[in-house]
Amino acid sequence: MIKDLENIFIGSHAKIMDAFTSLEKSNKSIITSDKWKRDEGGGGHTFVIQDGNFFDNCAVNFSSIAGKKLPKAALGKSISQSSKYGYRAMGVSVIAHPKNPFIPTSHMNIRLFCVMGINNTIKKWWIGGGYDLTPYLPFKDDCINWHKEAKENLDLYNKSFYKNFSKNCNEYFYIPHRKERRGIGGLFFDNLSNMTLEKSTNMLSGIANTYLESYQSIISKRKTSKFTKEQKEFQLLRRGRYAEFNLIYDRGTAFGLQSNGRIESILASLPKDVKWSYKKDKNYIKMEKEVLKYIGKDWNA
Amino acid sequence: MIKDLENIFIGSHAKIMDAFTSLEKSNKSIITSDKWKRDEGGGGHTFVIQDGNFFDNCAVNFSSIAGKKLPKAALGKSISQSSKYGYRAMGVSVIAHPKNPFIPTSHMNIRLFCVMGINNTIKKWWIGGGYDLTPYLPFKDDCINWHKEAKENLDLYNKSFYKNFSKNCNEYFYIPHRKERRGIGGLFFDNLSNMTLEKSTNMLSGIANTYLESYQSIISKRKTSKFTKEQKEFQLLRRGRYAEFNLIYDRGTAFGLQSNGRIESILASLPKDVKWSYKKDKNYIKMEKEVLKYIGKDWNA
Repeated sequence: MIKDLENIFIGSHAKIMDAFTSLEKSNKSIITSDKWKRDEGGGGHTFVIQDGNFFDNCAVNFSSIAGKKLPKAALGKSISQSSKYGYRAMGVSVIAHPKNPFIPTSHMNIRLFCVMGINNTIKKWWIGGGYDLTPYLPFKDDCINWHKEAKENLDLYNKSFYKNFSKNCNEYFYIPHRKERRGIGGLFFDNLSNMTLEKSTNMLSGIANTYLESYQSIISKRKTSKFTKEQKEFQLLRRGRYAEFNLIYDRGTAFGLQSNGRIESILASLPKDVKWSYKKDKNYIKMEKEVLKYIGKDWNA
Repeated sequence: MIKDLENIFIGSHAKIMDAFTSLEKSNKSIITSDKWKRDEGGGGHTFVIQDGNFFDNCAVNFSSIAGKKLPKAALGKSISQSSKYGYRAMGVSVIAHPKNPFIPTSHMNIRLFCVMGINNTIKKWWIGGGYDLTPYLPFKDDCINWHKEAKENLDLYNKSFYKNFSKNCNEYFYIPHRKERRGIGGLFFDNLSNMTLEKSTNMLSGIANTYLESYQSIISKRKTSKFTKEQKEFQLLRRGRYAEFNLIYDRGTAFGLQSNGRIESILASLPKDVKWSYKKDKNYIKMEKEVLKYIGKDWNA
């Protein structure tokens, strides 16, 4: 049973690795593909492209871990503590930081938590996941399509999902100390267990597919755009926001750190190069003003 | 009374700004010096050097803020909640990221919290502070002197302080998910209120002076060392650890973010350039192995 569930996630993982690899066309030394085991139980597969022609870096992680007690960060409001038979948590997470600042950073995650019962049965389970987009030099059409495609897919499962999940996404990917969202949103949900397990995992695969297709469509439109040194600098500085969110607020990162996870895999979500600057020059201020218009808008409206 | 206390901190702030400015000898455009006010009460002075000849960046902050309720991060274990007359918190904090990887990153902080009583009296107060050193390409003598000078100064106030504060420092500047300390230590203390207020603030000024003298002594020995591209790359990657600590674990940063502080000043502690890398090459591994020997050792032993 657990094996069958794992295979669903492994399928999504493989599909995204293939798609990202085909964007590179360069030598293989930029790719690291590590299968690993965890002392406390379970393991995973971390796939990283670094210093490519297309990606500054990206990470496509699969993990399936077993443990005795769920870490605090995994517990939603309404979820009771785990059973004496332990838990399983499996998921795929993707973060992509393309070199070209005209192509947004994107993130996708699908996950399943199982509280185990006697004889390896699943006593209780819930799913979570979503995806979001962080443009630097934004385009209106990209934002509209990103949300439109997310809605079309989720409407297949429940007509209320998109509205709720996109609202959650805006709330979740918020950086309080900056008073800014991380990007133009998308989907975020957690603790969902009101469909059958089969329908739930179908939906997770569908979310991974839709994410990939929507992102590929943006990539194909923007990948030939030429960018200036100032535009690249702007991207590196705005990536600081991304690092701040992931390190301070992200529940996925907290879950990984608290569950004694594999640090290299968890922090592979961070951008390869980041800048922080106290001073802001005129170019930066102008570009930031523009991108904040997009980030401040409700594209799900 | 509050004004007199502020002047003590302003004195330490000015001395460090002067010393750091004299290391640059270049045009003034690399220096930003901002005096600011805070809506809820109080203000500060943020002094930043960025893209200098000597510093990649450094921040020397003074702040004195007033508020109604102390943020959670400011409250020590034994400290009761604040009074209806509000609180004052003042301090100086310094973070220096020199360009040359042979010169360590350093940090210093001195702070005073006052719980106010009627008619602007101070009902209760405590001090905290310390300093620590983060070398990249370490030297034994630098580590020994750093600790020796810290001890000699603190022995003037209490013979047990150095032993306790240097132990605290090793415990506080620890990165749990990396299972590493941030550096080779120094001093850290908080919630200290068992001396007179006068003796306490004298000690804070003395700590700021000793920090500056110890750091200047290392700088004068190392500033002419030539470094390679690999050594610079190593520094940028290890600075990632610094950003992780400051964003995830540092109480000072948490205090700033929770107290609706001035974000630009708080995050001026972050290095200007940071790298994260999933892959580690042979050069990196060799240099990391070496620096971890120094970081893992108790220099206060």
